[in-house]
Amino acid sequence: MTAITDRPTTLEAPVDDARDVRIDVAALADQLLGPYADLRRQAREVAGRPEFQKIEGQPVPEHRERVLHQLRELAAHHDVLRAFPSRLGGADDHGGSLSRFEELVVADPSLQIKAGVQWGLFASAILHLGTADHHDRFLPAAMSVDVPGAFAMTETGHGSDVASIGTTATYDPATQEFVIHTPFRAAWKDYLGNAAQHATAAVVFAQLVTAGPEEPAVNHGVHAFYVPVRDASGAWMPGVGGEDDGLKGGLNGVDNGRLHFDQVRVPRSSLLNRYGDVAEDGTYSSPIASPGRRFFTMLGTLVQGRVSLDGAAANASKLALSIAVTYANQRRQFAGAGSDEVVLMDYGQHQRRLLPLIAETYASTFAHEELLAAFDAVFSGRGDTPEGREDLETLAATLKPTSTWHAMNTIQAAREACGGAGYLAENRLVGLHQDMDVYVTFEGDNTVLYQLVAKRLLTEYARSLKGAGAGDVARLVAGRAAGAALHRTPLIRAVQTLSDAGDARRSVGQLRDEAAQRELLTDRVESMVADLANSLRPAQKMAPAEAAALFNAHQHELIEAARAHAERVQWEAFTRGLAQVSDPATKQVLTWVRDLFGLQLIERHLAWYLINGRLSAGRARTVTSYIDRLLARLRPHAQDLVDAFGYGPEHLRAPIASGAEQERQDEARAHYRAQRASGQAPLPEKHIR
Amino acid sequence: MTAITDRPTTLEAPVDDARDVRIDVAALADQLLGPYADLRRQAREVAGRPEFQKIEGQPVPEHRERVLHQLRELAAHHDVLRAFPSRLGGADDHGGSLSRFEELVVADPSLQIKAGVQWGLFASAILHLGTADHHDRFLPAAMSVDVPGAFAMTETGHGSDVASIGTTATYDPATQEFVIHTPFRAAWKDYLGNAAQHATAAVVFAQLVTAGPEEPAVNHGVHAFYVPVRDASGAWMPGVGGEDDGLKGGLNGVDNGRLHFDQVRVPRSSLLNRYGDVAEDGTYSSPIASPGRRFFTMLGTLVQGRVSLDGAAANASKLALSIAVTYANQRRQFAGAGSDEVVLMDYGQHQRRLLPLIAETYASTFAHEELLAAFDAVFSGRGDTPEGREDLETLAATLKPTSTWHAMNTIQAAREACGGAGYLAENRLVGLHQDMDVYVTFEGDNTVLYQLVAKRLLTEYARSLKGAGAGDVARLVAGRAAGAALHRTPLIRAVQTLSDAGDARRSVGQLRDEAAQRELLTDRVESMVADLANSLRPAQKMAPAEAAALFNAHQHELIEAARAHAERVQWEAFTRGLAQVSDPATKQVLTWVRDLFGLQLIERHLAWYLINGRLSAGRARTVTSYIDRLLARLRPHAQDLVDAFGYGPEHLRAPIASGAEQERQDEARAHYRAQRASGQAPLPEKHIR
Repeated sequence: MTAITDRPTTLEAPVDDARDVRIDVAALADQLLGPYADLRRQAREVAGRPEFQKIEGQPVPEHRERVLHQLRELAAHHDVLRAFPSRLGGADDHGGSLSRFEELVVADPSLQIKAGVQWGLFASAILHLGTADHHDRFLPAAMSVDVPGAFAMTETGHGSDVASIGTTATYDPATQEFVIHTPFRAAWKDYLGNAAQHATAAVVFAQLVTAGPEEPAVNHGVHAFYVPVRDASGAWMPGVGGEDDGLKGGLNGVDNGRLHFDQVRVPRSSLLNRYGDVAEDGTYSSPIASPGRRFFTMLGTLVQGRVSLDGAAANASKLALSIAVTYANQRRQFAGAGSDEVVLMDYGQHQRRLLPLIAETYASTFAHEELLAAFDAVFSGRGDTPEGREDLETLAATLKPTSTWHAMNTIQAAREACGGAGYLAENRLVGLHQDMDVYVTFEGDNTVLYQLVAKRLLTEYARSLKGAGAGDVARLVAGRAAGAALHRTPLIRAVQTLSDAGDARRSVGQLRDEAAQRELLTDRVESMVADLANSLRPAQKMAPAEAAALFNAHQHELIEAARAHAERVQWEAFTRGLAQVSDPATKQVLTWVRDLFGLQLIERHLAWYLINGRLSAGRARTVTSYIDRLLARLRPHAQDLVDAFGYGPEHLRAPIASGAEQERQDEARAHYRAQRASGQAPLPEKHIR
Repeated sequence: MTAITDRPTTLEAPVDDARDVRIDVAALADQLLGPYADLRRQAREVAGRPEFQKIEGQPVPEHRERVLHQLRELAAHHDVLRAFPSRLGGADDHGGSLSRFEELVVADPSLQIKAGVQWGLFASAILHLGTADHHDRFLPAAMSVDVPGAFAMTETGHGSDVASIGTTATYDPATQEFVIHTPFRAAWKDYLGNAAQHATAAVVFAQLVTAGPEEPAVNHGVHAFYVPVRDASGAWMPGVGGEDDGLKGGLNGVDNGRLHFDQVRVPRSSLLNRYGDVAEDGTYSSPIASPGRRFFTMLGTLVQGRVSLDGAAANASKLALSIAVTYANQRRQFAGAGSDEVVLMDYGQHQRRLLPLIAETYASTFAHEELLAAFDAVFSGRGDTPEGREDLETLAATLKPTSTWHAMNTIQAAREACGGAGYLAENRLVGLHQDMDVYVTFEGDNTVLYQLVAKRLLTEYARSLKGAGAGDVARLVAGRAAGAALHRTPLIRAVQTLSDAGDARRSVGQLRDEAAQRELLTDRVESMVADLANSLRPAQKMAPAEAAALFNAHQHELIEAARAHAERVQWEAFTRGLAQVSDPATKQVLTWVRDLFGLQLIERHLAWYLINGRLSAGRARTVTSYIDRLLARLRPHAQDLVDAFGYGPEHLRAPIASGAEQERQDEARAHYRAQRASGQAPLPEKHIR
């Protein structure tokens, strides 16, 4: 409830000589590469090789074959199996494996996703949902891509709601087999990478139905089964069928398709039985008693998909910004005050467009590093507690939507900033947008993930209320009531307005203050969650339909609360990353970048801060003016900031970012200079009147 | 300066029985088709034929040939030449021609753009920049597409800044020829439709250089020349060369390419000489003395490109929303309170995502109709005054960016709302996004156009100050000073806050009030322009470099002012369209749609209204709550609202909007119903514990 008015004032002299400081690009690049720097550098070296790169416009059949071949090459020679057990040739290195995997997006997002399907989903399901016997029997061929596999979870009728899939696996004790069956068209497996052409096996998710001796049939919920789908010649196995999903908006190097099963029988041992097993007589058993918790535990083992998409999205943003900023520092358009034309990056609007995206990409990168560390802690076993898993899943659900939507915005802004040249496939931006598009709806639709996050925030809030003593709750409630009352009166704002009027610089100083930014961002999430909890409280005493309607009426607010949380998480990660910078000049510039990130968040939600009495109108005005000052300060560092992303020409591969534009500009300027010098330049008509 | 507090209160009873009213879909569809309804219906009939439709994923060479063939078919049989002179087989019907042309986007945006290149640019340049002799010699073959033509204006080095192109046309009195020449690589013509393959001629824009007898060479600025570029066999004419632009982000049915000229000679009569001519002896003459005004007059004749993109963008938005809403009304995901799953369109977030886009599409449609009327008035000669032309150009520059960016947002939101199915090419949304992408940067980059609009707004503001008497100015200034003072004090807000607290419904009633919305939207533009004028005033006394820097520092605000203006223009057009509705139920629903449009604009800029004292915090809160109420009211009408766009299955052509999803849902529900009825349904595990 603290209004920013109460904070002590920081009176720093403004640093306006932004050109006097200079980023240590190499050191910053190292920091951004993080603890897996060496692995990432190796992965980038591979991603920069022509044989792994996307050929824009390659026909779909050739693209699919190319990517399959690339996958096998990676398996054979390029250290992509680190996540698998040492005894099978892996390195039990989960974080390191993902750090490399995320770089594949730079070569070709199709390669990243096909690798993700093969190793991150298909083989990982065998690893995490299966047991030693499955590892021995199925992992080696899945790792080497001798068996390309599909991850058959999603159905045409059910995307994000996996619990409701229609495919069944009914145990037949007479033959000790499971019968995999598709009961209707909506239960066809759909959108599965590898399914259209290459998969010879699939991990199939189905409702496990079994009856113990003398008992009725029970549905034990979704379980995974290893099912061969094609023979070596590529023909369907008996009872299995499917379709090609055909052309997609992008990622056409991945052969997405559909699968359906007509009473397909697989042995009892094909059940990946780590979290649930069926005995010969049909008796079901599980180490996790609650079917709900069991389901989420099984799905939770596959969180690495979301983790890696978060990292890949940040990398795609880096690529797009590197291309657009490099071009904007060479391209000139419209005459300036002198005889020369103005470089695009010098335009105020161009800075407004691109620099905040750079700031957000830094935030995304620092936040991803923390997600990767959390992932490695859990999957290495070092931090594998129920709380650790829960936190990891929440963090992945927080960051994956944020960074994938950011990548879409960034790539589109970059493409528009490059004008017609940005629309040519050779300059990469349109292809990158097309490929990244589906990242926002697969591996958990972003909207659905944000809802999960919001529910977790509400749970935590309820816990904090329960954990608090009676006195704390009273204070909390009183605090909120007082806050609500304050919203009604212009008291706080009145005081701020009057005090701000006196000294504009002082209020800017406060917003630049790290603690002030934190307070504003944190307060907003906490208030939104508390308000939501309050609004949803009546649901506890309502009939289900009424409660659902109440919840639905607040769905938009839930999603906005999750977004606010994500922004705070990214800001905190950025601030922690900033604390690690040792070079003073780099630290200075990066502090501006962090401030730009923080202030753009506050500007984005300025109406909320005003309505809720957290900022006065006078203070709110300074948000935008301080952003303007930051943009002017950061402009000279734009190239350094994207260069620190560490991608070379072999990664950018965009002619407009190759220096060709600079050459053309130089040639044109030399032509006019020579013409003027020769005295042969025709006079402009207006000069002769 | 009027704060909304001062308005009289409207106390209408809230209409909550939104299902009791029902849109007259057929009548609304007729209204949306506008005065050119019959022509549009015919054009939609053609656009719905398979032979004119895009084949998603067709290889580029085949796609290019297909579109060229379609173009010739259109010319021969489908009344696409209405804009041309009657004496040459046209109908001198400029508005009617565009209304048909805009529907081509529904068949294939490549067809729309190739048609735009051929008739809207190449042939139109001959028509509007040439004289009778050119019409007779060049128009028939351009109209019939016997001569496919390029519109060679843009250069690699200069996009929106046409005045700075490098290509020269130097008059040689000895041979009475112009020598067309490309002096350096950046002056290659680029991104030209038809240039890569099909064009046999081009209208080439070049700096006209000529010397009268005994006079020095003078550059008379950009003029247009008719230049043959390929012979009948497709080989380059002597001195002409070029390149294929290759694969693009979309629109790959158009063969964009580059052209360059090495001292290419064309006869003197190839100058399209309506606005500037060169006599045999090299003497230049023009009916327009000012080179600047001449340049803008010549470019102004080509405004129809922007007009038609505005209409096509609105149509693309309609298509995307028709697909997404139809699917969202059939698709179910996640269990609701009953046994059934919830239809997507019933989710609060889905309504928040799609319904405001429907409202904006209606606004865009009504505004486009007014633009088309203005265009027809000027080009028919009925309203062809300098002011009429200036207003038309400003309106086109206002609406084209607004509707093309809106189309991009809408198509992307529609694609995400359809999840994985939205990513399949067969469902049209990804292809539509890819094709429409370049609309935001071609025919005048959106950012550049908004700047033109802002400059016009500033000019009008300066005029209004000059036109006002001394007393008026004093009042104006005093009014602004008083306004500025009010911003500083919480007085207005304090009053509002206290009065609002008493009766929330009353304040909602005020925002629903048409006059209140108009006041808020209008006041914002006017204040932004006045503030800008004030900020930029010192530039008049500055050195050019300093003035340019000042202007640049306010570039973002200029663009935001233009955006605010565009929003107001759309809102006014919507409101005028609403006044034409006679059916009471339709009028009621459409009023909610207009209110949703108005309030979403106010919500988007809520911080501005709060900072500038136009809305109190209490009033601002009601904006969002009233939007929520409108969304709930409009939800039952979502399908009617998109059905009124009037596109049939032959236009949508998306399997997910074909009813197939409904069939799948019905089949699945029948399966479970039968299973439950038979008593064979396995028990859920949680039910047996």
